[in-house]
Amino acid sequence: MDLNEAIRRRRSIRRFTGQSVALDRLVELVRAGIWAPTAGNVQSWRFVIVNDKGVLDRIKAVSPGMLGMPTALIVICQDKDLAFQKGSMLGRDVGSVMDAAMAAQNIMLAAHASGLGSCAVLSFHAETVRRFLDMPVSVRPELLITIGVPATCPDPPKREVNGIAFVNSMAHDISLGEDLAH
Amino acid sequence: MDLNEAIRRRRSIRRFTGQSVALDRLVELVRAGIWAPTAGNVQSWRFVIVNDKGVLDRIKAVSPGMLGMPTALIVICQDKDLAFQKGSMLGRDVGSVMDAAMAAQNIMLAAHASGLGSCAVLSFHAETVRRFLDMPVSVRPELLITIGVPATCPDPPKREVNGIAFVNSMAHDISLGEDLAH
Repeated sequence: MDLNEAIRRRRSIRRFTGQSVALDRLVELVRAGIWAPTAGNVQSWRFVIVNDKGVLDRIKAVSPGMLGMPTALIVICQDKDLAFQKGSMLGRDVGSVMDAAMAAQNIMLAAHASGLGSCAVLSFHAETVRRFLDMPVSVRPELLITIGVPATCPDPPKREVNGIAFVNSMAHDISLGEDLAH
Repeated sequence: MDLNEAIRRRRSIRRFTGQSVALDRLVELVRAGIWAPTAGNVQSWRFVIVNDKGVLDRIKAVSPGMLGMPTALIVICQDKDLAFQKGSMLGRDVGSVMDAAMAAQNIMLAAHASGLGSCAVLSFHAETVRRFLDMPVSVRPELLITIGVPATCPDPPKREVNGIAFVNSMAHDISLGEDLAH
């Protein structure tokens, strides 16, 4: 799929058919994730694919932000001790969070291109998910990416195009154009 | 450009030719950015394109992470007050940082697809950059994206493929495969 099409047509999907997704397709999404940049090339990320129904149900029970019932999750985590060793406080507290999000964006674009739906979920109980997935205390789940076959594809939320972009100063506002307004 | 090619061939570029980049190409990159998801659809992001040499030089002087001399910057910011109003503490402190990073990934992929090089820069003095760009105190620059015509294209850093991915438990490690090892 063309990059521009993937960027513009990806939606956050919250209704799934329940159809299973083969493990190798999920691994392929993680592979897309690790081509994102990492601050200082630290690569302190860890990815846990969850496709066991029992584990999914337990995670869903502690994740208010997880709507619908996806077939799988990719839990994007960071080894915070490693991030600190290699990138000090800035790397641990900001860089590793951004790295997780950049990998997530690759994963969501790749999911869309392979006919899957996805949604990033931030509202979940990280410490409980950490224990459910047998992670050491240094590893923190940063973001859940739900994955499944989309049951519906929602309309895109309207993008704000005014008051968003500026040139050389926030006193110089430019419009991102009417074609982005729907 | 094909999505997979963009994901796998994008590099962090730190040497640029000095050739100028037309403003409409930079605006097009911001347009790619705003198709990233935002937590709770808050869209509290703000993008400042910097293509004035004087402003670039001033920002470079307070940005240890900014290597080489890019032709332009896209400064990805967040209106932290708006992020808090719409998304409470989680939205302001984590969601808005992740939103900035997801938009950044779209921008860096789109830059690569249009023949430009880019690099995400986290090490800069945010408060000084805020003042240089006439931002209100509620707006925080989260990330600088350098943009320019690449002078060289470095080899990709080796991706770790073992100890990175797991299935249903961190006790169950899988390899992401030899083909990703270079």
